[in-house]
Amino acid sequence: MGNFKGHALPGSFFLIVGLWWSVKFSLWHASRRNKNACHLASKITYRRLEVIEASVILLFALVGMLAEQFVPDGPHLKLYNYEDKHWDHLMNWQHATMYLFFGISAAVSITVHTMGVVPIAFDRLLLAIAVFVEGFLFYYHLHGRLMLDVHVHQLLLFAIFGGALTIFLEVFFRGNILLELLRCSLCLLQGSWFWQIGFVLYPPSGFPEWDNMDHNNMMFITMCYCWHFAFALLTVAVNFTIVSWLVQTKLKKTPQLEMGLLKTKEREEESEEDL
Amino acid sequence: MGNFKGHALPGSFFLIVGLWWSVKFSLWHASRRNKNACHLASKITYRRLEVIEASVILLFALVGMLAEQFVPDGPHLKLYNYEDKHWDHLMNWQHATMYLFFGISAAVSITVHTMGVVPIAFDRLLLAIAVFVEGFLFYYHLHGRLMLDVHVHQLLLFAIFGGALTIFLEVFFRGNILLELLRCSLCLLQGSWFWQIGFVLYPPSGFPEWDNMDHNNMMFITMCYCWHFAFALLTVAVNFTIVSWLVQTKLKKTPQLEMGLLKTKEREEESEEDL
Amino acid sequence: MGNFKGHALPGSFFLIVGLWWSVKFSLWHASRRNKNACHLASKITYRRLEVIEASVILLFALVGMLAEQFVPDGPHLKLYNYEDKHWDHLMNWQHATMYLFFGISAAVSITVHTMGVVPIAFDRLLLAIAVFVEGFLFYYHLHGRLMLDVHVHQLLLFAIFGGALTIFLEVFFRGNILLELLRCSLCLLQGSWFWQIGFVLYPPSGFPEWDNMDHNNMMFITMCYCWHFAFALLTVAVNFTIVSWLVQTKLKKTPQLEMGLLKTKEREEESEEDL
Amino acid sequence: MGNFKGHALPGSFFLIVGLWWSVKFSLWHASRRNKNACHLASKITYRRLEVIEASVILLFALVGMLAEQFVPDGPHLKLYNYEDKHWDHLMNWQHATMYLFFGISAAVSITVHTMGVVPIAFDRLLLAIAVFVEGFLFYYHLHGRLMLDVHVHQLLLFAIFGGALTIFLEVFFRGNILLELLRCSLCLLQGSWFWQIGFVLYPPSGFPEWDNMDHNNMMFITMCYCWHFAFALLTVAVNFTIVSWLVQTKLKKTPQLEMGLLKTKEREEESEEDL
Repeated sequence: MGNFKGHALPGSFFLIVGLWWSVKFSLWHASRRNKNACHLASKITYRRLEVIEASVILLFALVGMLAEQFVPDGPHLKLYNYEDKHWDHLMNWQHATMYLFFGISAAVSITVHTMGVVPIAFDRLLLAIAVFVEGFLFYYHLHGRLMLDVHVHQLLLFAIFGGALTIFLEVFFRGNILLELLRCSLCLLQGSWFWQIGFVLYPPSGFPEWDNMDHNNMMFITMCYCWHFAFALLTVAVNFTIVSWLVQTKLKKTPQLEMGLLKTKEREEESEEDL
Repeated sequence: MGNFKGHALPGSFFLIVGLWWSVKFSLWHASRRNKNACHLASKITYRRLEVIEASVILLFALVGMLAEQFVPDGPHLKLYNYEDKHWDHLMNWQHATMYLFFGISAAVSITVHTMGVVPIAFDRLLLAIAVFVEGFLFYYHLHGRLMLDVHVHQLLLFAIFGGALTIFLEVFFRGNILLELLRCSLCLLQGSWFWQIGFVLYPPSGFPEWDNMDHNNMMFITMCYCWHFAFALLTVAVNFTIVSWLVQTKLKKTPQLEMGLLKTKEREEESEEDL
Repeated sequence: MGNFKGHALPGSFFLIVGLWWSVKFSLWHASRRNKNACHLASKITYRRLEVIEASVILLFALVGMLAEQFVPDGPHLKLYNYEDKHWDHLMNWQHATMYLFFGISAAVSITVHTMGVVPIAFDRLLLAIAVFVEGFLFYYHLHGRLMLDVHVHQLLLFAIFGGALTIFLEVFFRGNILLELLRCSLCLLQGSWFWQIGFVLYPPSGFPEWDNMDHNNMMFITMCYCWHFAFALLTVAVNFTIVSWLVQTKLKKTPQLEMGLLKTKEREEESEEDL
Repeated sequence: MGNFKGHALPGSFFLIVGLWWSVKFSLWHASRRNKNACHLASKITYRRLEVIEASVILLFALVGMLAEQFVPDGPHLKLYNYEDKHWDHLMNWQHATMYLFFGISAAVSITVHTMGVVPIAFDRLLLAIAVFVEGFLFYYHLHGRLMLDVHVHQLLLFAIFGGALTIFLEVFFRGNILLELLRCSLCLLQGSWFWQIGFVLYPPSGFPEWDNMDHNNMMFITMCYCWHFAFALLTVAVNFTIVSWLVQTKLKKTPQLEMGLLKTKEREEESEEDL
């Protein structure tokens, strides 16, 4: 992954996921606030959305694992080179391992939301584990690199482990909009920082090279990281505002039907889940 | 900020904020305890106070950012010096970044307390993030300085990250007077320690120079830090006592009117918020 | 313990315990979900199972302690060699200390589940302490070894301290199936990783030697650790699915008797315990 | 404090406190379990005990501070030696600072339990702060000592910071017997470890000298620390058992009087406090 594209790709992925989550959680929060009006929609939509989201992530994880293995210069499932006595394409295997855990998390999420047997909080727990494993592998990735290279990746770890911790807290405080939006902004931060790493370590033609050992560069990069975070917070805030406003505007137009009594079973399920 | 005034200024700011918070939270706690008597005042005052406080902080943050940019020897919004190939006035930019996050936190606080849509705990979350970012930038500030210089700033980090953690806990235990007063004392500690740093690193004329490499100085400074904390705790305790006593004395004089029934809506809002 | 068998033995032990726990907690969770049907069985079985489990662990701990002392090349309760002026067989004493804490934990668990006086959460607290002490002794075990040796043991510490933390959280969230299954998978991870350590550091004849200073080996080992964890998660998931399915299948066959009213005292005890 | 007595003294103090706490909390727990019988006694005794305990600690702290200042070779309130340009008796000042925080904690505890205005959890918060400050000063105490010296003090820090954390958790889980007994055992551990440090670093005549740089000594000391902990756990368990048994035996003898209705006010206070 030692090139610009190898950082831009996951960056874009995390940016899209972060944007999507901020819309989803805002929508879900807004519809919970106006329960009497859009009660029906929210519940069914919610489950369906979670399953679709997990399926997409599962698909991406599978494609990612296959791609890492079978790209022209990939390992093609070969792990050890017996002739030269060294491990073969460890990088590709590491990325595949990261995808594997996101795949497991997505598979569990599908199971949890289609079948009723497994406790629902498992989707958060496995997601937290997947993000933690991502950070764990990154952490042991950095051994023996140059100062700036290590520093930009260390900064990335703050976003990753912060995200893992936030999602783990969601296991116990499920549906807490604060944690959910914090997770979104950390995800966006991760995405945009991947792009930044690409520009810093592998500047595309036309962009200046960075001096890897200049201390001022490190100081700037740290500050730049905070700007990315401010930008991520702003994006989440804007999304939250737009979605809340749209939900409220739409509600005023639709006449509110009283159909609560027909839905007793569903309502019970929901209140059960709230616990 | 490498001078005495550059440490005395934020020090004074944090001292004032700490004092103000200890008064505010004590007042708020005392009026909650005597709900039947001063119910009306507290609720309206509370919201108004929060908005005023946030507006003042927002103003300070804006003024601070502008000042850091447009002081005579500031960067004037120039970030990179293309002629000499180095970053321009990184210190000023870092301070401006710190102010930016306090500004964001204040802006969110105003939104939360004037409009009813956003969950109220966001003011705490953003404040915790702002304090964390302050500590984060300070932490990467210290690279390559002398022993005593690093040590006094490390001690400062205890107060900063301790404060960030306390405010983050307040997200989940909102209105807990223990956490609020702990936050006040950590804020006072931060303020008085900034003054101490100024005296240690940039002694004004008439004060003795400190030997940056003397191990005994480090031992003394660590102990001195504890004294500052004891002083901060004492200040908060005195403020709390005075405010509690004033509220109780005043209440005995005023006849207690029964006007609770008129305020049903407000009371409901409050109990909702208590959750 | 510097040989293959010395790692395979505890590895097998932790694997068996992990498998057993995943079956136990799944069973217990499934029977709680179907309370009306198998209420009677679960409660009595639960207590009995806990006592049996603790007795077995206590027995193992005692046998382990005696074995460490009285194997032919063991210390035979001698701690200091006064002739040569050095400590005698410190390794054996350390292992015996680890067993001691597991023994204490088991003894407390028996007390807690047979007598009603002691709060029930003590079994978790003492187990968390036992696992923590295991990690604590391992941590100070590593001083002055080769890179790969240190690394594989450090990875083990993640599983151990992660397990200790999970069990400590169970003190406050007792009966939380998520924490319980997470504990199971960390226990399985510990077990299979002990085997892996055996193969890496003391390869049995026929297996290749590992280069202790090769950086690529470290990268591979880190990734391999994640695979072990994925495998542990899978094992727990399979066990949970099978047990849930068996319980549900069996329930459909048995007619549901209404005998709740006869068991008032027992039910009260249980609801008390749920708090 | 560089002598045997300087470690035996605080060691004895912590041992006595730990024993006293384990009796107090066991008693309090047993009387809560048998509320109907000894309701009257417990409540009054509890407050009185807390005030007496805090008064004794306050007295000790004051005496300690005075002793550290005015022993023959103490600083006599002189902090800086202007002639020789160095800090005067920093050790004594550090110990006095530790006592100061325990004194503050005791003073707050007296206030909290005699007056009804201050929230009751402040006694725990200030105690946690006092213990944390003790560990904090110890931590910066260790710079530039020999390996074994550093190691035995680092092990002490585990007991201290563990204790601080446990007491901080008690702020939120007040009256949790698990945390209370864990605190007792960590306090006993601290006490007995102080004695051990005395024997290791300043062996009284007749005891052998320890080699400060022998790696085996470090290994043994780590294990020895675990034995101290096992011993502390055992002591707490024995105390808890004896007290529970005594309370239950005594109750069977006394006839149970129905005087609950007379104590309405008190009972309300208590249930308020339970929240």
